[in-house]
Amino acid sequence: MRDWTKQRTERARRLEQAAPFATGKVVKADDVTALLQRVIRSGDRLCLEGDNQKQADFLARCLTRVDPATIHDLHIVQSGLVLPEHLDLFRLGIARKLDFSYSGPQSGAIARALDKGNIELGAIHTYIELFARYYVDLTPNVSLIAAVCADREGNLYTGPNTEDTPTIVEATAYKSGIVIAQANRIVDKVPRVDIPGDQVDFIVEAPEPFYVEPLFTRDPAAVTESQILMAMMALKGIYAEYQPKRLNHGIGFATAAIELLLPTYGEQLGMRGKVATHWALNPHPTLIPAIESGWVEQIHCFGSEVGMDGYMSARPDIYFIGKDGTLRSNRLLCQNAGLYACDMFIGATLQIDLAGNSSTVTPDRIAGFGGAPNMGSDAHGRRHVSEAWLKAGHEAAGGAGPLVRGRKLVVQMVETFGEGMKPAFVEELDSIALARKLGMPLSPVMIFGDDVTHIVTEEGIANLLLCRDADEVEQAIRGVAGYTPVGLARDRKKVEELRGRGVIRRPEDLGIDPLQANRNLLAARSIRDLVTWSDGLYAPPSKFRNW
Amino acid sequence: MRDWTKQRTERARRLEQAAPFATGKVVKADDVTALLQRVIRSGDRLCLEGDNQKQADFLARCLTRVDPATIHDLHIVQSGLVLPEHLDLFRLGIARKLDFSYSGPQSGAIARALDKGNIELGAIHTYIELFARYYVDLTPNVSLIAAVCADREGNLYTGPNTEDTPTIVEATAYKSGIVIAQANRIVDKVPRVDIPGDQVDFIVEAPEPFYVEPLFTRDPAAVTESQILMAMMALKGIYAEYQPKRLNHGIGFATAAIELLLPTYGEQLGMRGKVATHWALNPHPTLIPAIESGWVEQIHCFGSEVGMDGYMSARPDIYFIGKDGTLRSNRLLCQNAGLYACDMFIGATLQIDLAGNSSTVTPDRIAGFGGAPNMGSDAHGRRHVSEAWLKAGHEAAGGAGPLVRGRKLVVQMVETFGEGMKPAFVEELDSIALARKLGMPLSPVMIFGDDVTHIVTEEGIANLLLCRDADEVEQAIRGVAGYTPVGLARDRKKVEELRGRGVIRRPEDLGIDPLQANRNLLAARSIRDLVTWSDGLYAPPSKFRNW
Repeated sequence: MRDWTKQRTERARRLEQAAPFATGKVVKADDVTALLQRVIRSGDRLCLEGDNQKQADFLARCLTRVDPATIHDLHIVQSGLVLPEHLDLFRLGIARKLDFSYSGPQSGAIARALDKGNIELGAIHTYIELFARYYVDLTPNVSLIAAVCADREGNLYTGPNTEDTPTIVEATAYKSGIVIAQANRIVDKVPRVDIPGDQVDFIVEAPEPFYVEPLFTRDPAAVTESQILMAMMALKGIYAEYQPKRLNHGIGFATAAIELLLPTYGEQLGMRGKVATHWALNPHPTLIPAIESGWVEQIHCFGSEVGMDGYMSARPDIYFIGKDGTLRSNRLLCQNAGLYACDMFIGATLQIDLAGNSSTVTPDRIAGFGGAPNMGSDAHGRRHVSEAWLKAGHEAAGGAGPLVRGRKLVVQMVETFGEGMKPAFVEELDSIALARKLGMPLSPVMIFGDDVTHIVTEEGIANLLLCRDADEVEQAIRGVAGYTPVGLARDRKKVEELRGRGVIRRPEDLGIDPLQANRNLLAARSIRDLVTWSDGLYAPPSKFRNW
Repeated sequence: MRDWTKQRTERARRLEQAAPFATGKVVKADDVTALLQRVIRSGDRLCLEGDNQKQADFLARCLTRVDPATIHDLHIVQSGLVLPEHLDLFRLGIARKLDFSYSGPQSGAIARALDKGNIELGAIHTYIELFARYYVDLTPNVSLIAAVCADREGNLYTGPNTEDTPTIVEATAYKSGIVIAQANRIVDKVPRVDIPGDQVDFIVEAPEPFYVEPLFTRDPAAVTESQILMAMMALKGIYAEYQPKRLNHGIGFATAAIELLLPTYGEQLGMRGKVATHWALNPHPTLIPAIESGWVEQIHCFGSEVGMDGYMSARPDIYFIGKDGTLRSNRLLCQNAGLYACDMFIGATLQIDLAGNSSTVTPDRIAGFGGAPNMGSDAHGRRHVSEAWLKAGHEAAGGAGPLVRGRKLVVQMVETFGEGMKPAFVEELDSIALARKLGMPLSPVMIFGDDVTHIVTEEGIANLLLCRDADEVEQAIRGVAGYTPVGLARDRKKVEELRGRGVIRRPEDLGIDPLQANRNLLAARSIRDLVTWSDGLYAPPSKFRNW
């Protein structure tokens, strides 16, 4: 007779061993390491939340203190690997295998750890791909999560940074796993229930509030004229032409420039109400002027952003706000929104090759891709139409027809030379060298060229939808690659022919005077301007305050 | 000064007007229509849950009784439109516009209502596409949902049929909408909290338990030898060759036959443990023999299935089960699992054209597609590799390489002649005529040909991955289309050439003797056999009991 309840029995066994360290569900901060030592087993799949922003940092610290002789070979399955402690787990021999989506500050450390053989890399996922695997073949045995507060029954209030938490907890709790939450405070009653207590096994009041990274704040003061020019081209050459109402902006100064130009240049172009009304977007402070100017109808958020909570709470008609008065974010839902309900994704990258493949991964820095592969892919399952989507699809197919699908607009904005004057356009992505080194059968690519519709540089826009073969794609890319080696090696005749067909468009082809591209065009030129636009509701973190 | 809290004010106004009909959150069944009349406004977007299986049928009935002079022009946004009452709303002039995913029993009635102009059709979505739009441009103002029980604070227990409920409620509750739940019982304490009470405004104890449709039960007694032959070809020609471990099966007798052959024919082929170990799947009773024979490691479910609850509760190592001991399903999560974490989707269709486009929509029957467009599409955002996925991608590309993505296996199983001897293979999909009639810019297509990798009929398997141009795709399809006009019009020489290359494979090419394809090969030959396999835990609904 097969035993069909092994997981449940194992769970009960662990809970029993942990019991001496808890009163009900409540664990004292000093007892957490001992508790972890009893509820975790070597070889477990473990999620140490690890979101895009919010970090279960206290639990991470406690986990680094378990005895590697007892607990080792953990398989870490979490979207964000951003704290030094996340890497320490591998260095100390507590964890061995890694499946993740995004690093960032740890991108260099991950590359070094892989090099040393300290980390066995599963895969670099897009967020909802990793979440999807939580329900199929990467279900966590134990999840360590973070909340703003908890009551003694384990009901959790995540506040504006709900992010990944419900998705992590559901997978763990309903597969006989163990869920442990750190909370900033344990209270009698939570302001709202983001996670029901019956999905949570243990709670601990952390000595300090969980760490949140202000990831999406771009200071308008740092926006350059080159980025303003690119933003103008994007607005006139893409937004005005396709009129995407529903969209996502990635992180970066070029898209921040677009946000800051909506109430000025966008207004001149008569676009208010016609484009960019509905967003799947993190709470970018640089969108405040557009919101206040009446451009935006609704925004759903992946997570929150430090300093934006008060502003969003005061704008419930725009944001998703709970009855407690604060934002409800949800990364799974917002990524779904970006995949299936948006007509455009526009974002930055580090490198683009001659087929339009792009990557931010190099042998020295394994940054992960976060949501970009998902948001920047054409959803073949989409069945509803919009004008923007159909227009893109008809351009790609060379005509309309009852069986001609639309296409998502996937726009990559990149200056021809990046940090340290490194060319953004390359014959071969650096990530291919990494794949060779690590023996990966597929190179880490952020967005594949067949999904990219437009590339915007300071030299112009390349419309890949209108390219009819790989050679045209290559010349269209070379044609906007400026003075990089890739750009200099263009076939000038072919590039001019593509320009004649509107595949490549220069600022002058769009009626844009580069001299007009100056900082006076920005609706806000500093963080302080954003605070003013927000009527004092936006409270930027101190590192962005310079007045 | 712009008012940024209009939605919240409107919500408060409605709740105030509804107050006389509720004691706290509890509404008497007799008062529901009066309450609805006060909380709903003409033009509202309304979700009347309306899942794949579970139905808020009592609330649906109450809604048909509101005064159309007061409440009209509702925009219905719900995944399933399956009850007569759903259609009545349009007939009575209460609702006008419709965005949905699946009908089924109402597919004929929807077609007639569209014809009469009673329904303004938004779009036919795949499930998570509609859910995604709940967070972008189709956010419900009011949602009417169904639960097994509720406590007086509004905490809901959905039982095994959680399905769409969390996704609907989150969109509505966090955008100042109103959520009303019918519950089979109001209790002091719910067995587990599927929906926290602070997201629910009103609860009513319905006179009868909500209706659930047994949608996924296929009686093994009705499996034909032709379907068994197709299942054998699929197992030997696709499962054994690509070895997909993670997969979804659609509904239908051919895929039920595969499930019933795993412990017999699959065992002969030595495939146990090598394929089909992890599933995103509804609780198909026909999978019981494979589960009991040790084929299956884990299953995540979109919804539940009538009669399967006791069996699943006793198999918590396989299914996702709550601490209350019953299944937790979740359509959003399971569709994500199907999209991003599965290597294969295999399902049936009604019509396939010469490019491999398939549809179940005809001018007379608008059935919707449910999850098929999502599950049956290649996710371009996927970044993790598996052997099955890579093999398919390399076949399509004609080779491997660091930039050659994998492909999802998307298999369509169809007998060459369907119900009433209607050919399944057609020169033009019937849905194109519908698109013309209704002026739709895009024909309703379930799965587009560019995502289909294999077509299996009783004549053979066509591997579209190996086709190098549209003409080869056409001949590969004609080559398995049997005696249909499409099949008869094949270019025999070309078809033989494709067969020589393994693009088309006949039973004999696979070493399958059609005479072996008989019902003795099925692990269960009746519903009663399934009950026996389940050790008496499976409790089939009475309509399937004939002993």
